[in-house]
Amino acid sequence: MNKNFSAYNTEDCIAALATPWGQSALAVIRASGKDCVNRFAPAFSKAEKLIRARGGSMVHGSITDPHSGGTLDEVLVGVFRQPQSYTGEEAFEIYCHGSLPGIRGILALLARLGFRQAQPGEFSFRAFFNGKMDLTRAEAVQEIVCARTEKAHALALRRLSGAIAEKISQARNLLVQALAGLEIRLDYPEEDVPDSAAGDGAAAPELPRAEEILKQLLATCAEGRLYQEGARVALAGKVNAGKSSLFNYIVREERSIVSENPGTTRDYIEALVPVAGIPVTFYDTAGLRDSSDSVETEGVRRSRLILEHADLVIYLIDASEEDAFQPDRKDTAATGETGGRRITVWNKIDRLPPQAADQARQEGRICVSATGGDGIPELLEEIAKELLPARSAGEEALIDSLRQKELLEQSLEALRRFSRRAGIYPLDIVAEDLREAVNALGKITGEVTTEEMLSLMFSRFCVGK
Amino acid sequence: MNKNFSAYNTEDCIAALATPWGQSALAVIRASGKDCVNRFAPAFSKAEKLIRARGGSMVHGSITDPHSGGTLDEVLVGVFRQPQSYTGEEAFEIYCHGSLPGIRGILALLARLGFRQAQPGEFSFRAFFNGKMDLTRAEAVQEIVCARTEKAHALALRRLSGAIAEKISQARNLLVQALAGLEIRLDYPEEDVPDSAAGDGAAAPELPRAEEILKQLLATCAEGRLYQEGARVALAGKVNAGKSSLFNYIVREERSIVSENPGTTRDYIEALVPVAGIPVTFYDTAGLRDSSDSVETEGVRRSRLILEHADLVIYLIDASEEDAFQPDRKDTAATGETGGRRITVWNKIDRLPPQAADQARQEGRICVSATGGDGIPELLEEIAKELLPARSAGEEALIDSLRQKELLEQSLEALRRFSRRAGIYPLDIVAEDLREAVNALGKITGEVTTEEMLSLMFSRFCVGK
Repeated sequence: MNKNFSAYNTEDCIAALATPWGQSALAVIRASGKDCVNRFAPAFSKAEKLIRARGGSMVHGSITDPHSGGTLDEVLVGVFRQPQSYTGEEAFEIYCHGSLPGIRGILALLARLGFRQAQPGEFSFRAFFNGKMDLTRAEAVQEIVCARTEKAHALALRRLSGAIAEKISQARNLLVQALAGLEIRLDYPEEDVPDSAAGDGAAAPELPRAEEILKQLLATCAEGRLYQEGARVALAGKVNAGKSSLFNYIVREERSIVSENPGTTRDYIEALVPVAGIPVTFYDTAGLRDSSDSVETEGVRRSRLILEHADLVIYLIDASEEDAFQPDRKDTAATGETGGRRITVWNKIDRLPPQAADQARQEGRICVSATGGDGIPELLEEIAKELLPARSAGEEALIDSLRQKELLEQSLEALRRFSRRAGIYPLDIVAEDLREAVNALGKITGEVTTEEMLSLMFSRFCVGK
Repeated sequence: MNKNFSAYNTEDCIAALATPWGQSALAVIRASGKDCVNRFAPAFSKAEKLIRARGGSMVHGSITDPHSGGTLDEVLVGVFRQPQSYTGEEAFEIYCHGSLPGIRGILALLARLGFRQAQPGEFSFRAFFNGKMDLTRAEAVQEIVCARTEKAHALALRRLSGAIAEKISQARNLLVQALAGLEIRLDYPEEDVPDSAAGDGAAAPELPRAEEILKQLLATCAEGRLYQEGARVALAGKVNAGKSSLFNYIVREERSIVSENPGTTRDYIEALVPVAGIPVTFYDTAGLRDSSDSVETEGVRRSRLILEHADLVIYLIDASEEDAFQPDRKDTAATGETGGRRITVWNKIDRLPPQAADQARQEGRICVSATGGDGIPELLEEIAKELLPARSAGEEALIDSLRQKELLEQSLEALRRFSRRAGIYPLDIVAEDLREAVNALGKITGEVTTEEMLSLMFSRFCVGK
């Protein structure tokens, strides 16, 4: 690990509120750093007990300002001894009342005792720095906190357990083996080395297996990011096609004002709904029509922007209109979205004669009733199917970090370059390619680091993590 | 203690999120109840270690759904053994990631394991029920959480440490002693009992001391409630007197739109600012003038309402106006507030010649510059002085609970009735008065309870407390 990284100082004691800022029963203030318990002890009513406390134990007492003598709170302090802590350093957590002036007072007291306010991600950075977790696990910590659906949360937990790091390390070991063979050839060009590690290097049997692992991991990225970042799904269609009713049914609360008056929804409305574990933001847009009303015209303009940037457009047609099932209907071409994915849905199917509705379904059309709810579970299934990329392979560990994705691509690219040039270019040049492939993987887990990368990565974390 | 109180069931296991609902580094889920650790253990990766864990220790592991086998989070569990816990029962706290789907998942799992979602205040109720704290301490817990200034927080902490309970108990003991003397007289009317506990009872030397303690406590209530509930201070004055500038200076952020255009502030704006530890809500009101603008007229109407309900009105006069210091200025009478306390303040003092400003100050007028900040610390001091009731006695324990106040009044009233009637009415009738005084005090601490009172009290608590 690169110990020269200086974006965070790791020599001092840090502290931060780890729970959300707000009135509540409890709050947690977290602190870490060399001898931090001794540093805090003078402000604790049972200083001796705290100093002697074993790692993993809690001490009950009061926090008192050693200067003013004023009591700040009655708390529990959890003590963690090096290296059995989140950060790998000596650390403690204060479980105090969730009172705003109380929390403020304790943080100010800690500052006076020499605790620096922790930067975002600084606790996790120390955990990485002290070898408690590799970078894929550190990223998973933040992904767990930010997960918006149970599925995204479960996937991040798998990454925290090291599922990604394990695969990367498998591939990296294979590459290192191949590289070792190559280096033997470089050092002893005249020796009789066994075939597997010799020749032009391309023959190394480890490379195809490594490449396969990396390709599989890379393939999970689209899906991984989908669960973490979610998708934007816009409801579109002519005025009064029932977009707001469908939106409301999906959101299950009266978010949009529903009325029979065409053009009621003037601006777009959005709401987050988990669909098969994907955090989907649904957008209800203004009905698309030319209007003389300037407010409505502005609404239509904004709606078009939403449609253009949506990952998926649900195009709603009023099934009770005469030309509802005509293939040459004009409006479907007029939605303004270009090239995006789209599902066409026939709404108000309950207004059709049962026979006509059945026929429409048999023709494979998605038919719903936004007021009664018919067909909506099927529509949501269809949305998930449309959003999810072709499944790579069952219950894989999914990558969701763009950083990890880019490094995987770098590694694969270097590997391909190696395969292209091996046997043509001198051995010492193609060995560089292989080394680059190994290094890119090392950066994913943090065995190889750069200051810029670490700073970029941890600064996206929340404070107290 | 009355064990028949049934608003909460105390036989089952309860659980609740104790930290605010939101994304953060950590969250705390709290659980309590007989054998709750055993009940939870099947969902914990290190079940055996958890079951054997000593009180006050933490165990690191994963929470796994015993049915699906899916992992919900990697957590620390703090174990508390009866009676060394907040509730006095066996209890545990889960320190998990502050992820919304994660928290939801764990709470749902606990529900499947038979943990009931705790009602507001239910943990504190169990603490009271199990004799861990009297009612004044239980109330202090909630007051700590709700405190809005450091002072209010510090006062609530004093109550939590038992400062109120101690005084109540002093007074109650004195009354019980007097009552005992009286009862001896009732039981043995012919005996020769010593003077102190005999006679008409009014001669009991304990009563004046008890009454004094109770009166002192009662006197603290106005101040105690002021720190907890705060005060409403409204800025009033003619248009363009500089109310918004003063408001902004006090709030220290550009909350009001300041402009030279008279009548800019049409609605009122409020902001909370601690003044000498009192949470003061300042209201910036619309300038008081007749206007043809209907929106502004509505603003003036609402401002008058605010002025009528304010605890204190700061009446601002533009010192640079010609008649600023004329005692017969009309506008001061036209503010609409009636009978409330008021401080008159001359603003824009920096626009006066220094001599004129000095003279105004020498006349005892409060002079400020809302743009430069001159005189504002003095104004805030004046506001605190005006709001605070005449000091009872130094660093007292302050009562802030209306419930406690009413019971104190009841006790004092019974005591006075006793004094009035002793020697006139038969002994057994006046003994009733004394008993009532004792009972009212018992209700304050919870030695005497009614179901309605408990239910009313704890239901105001937050969940998880």
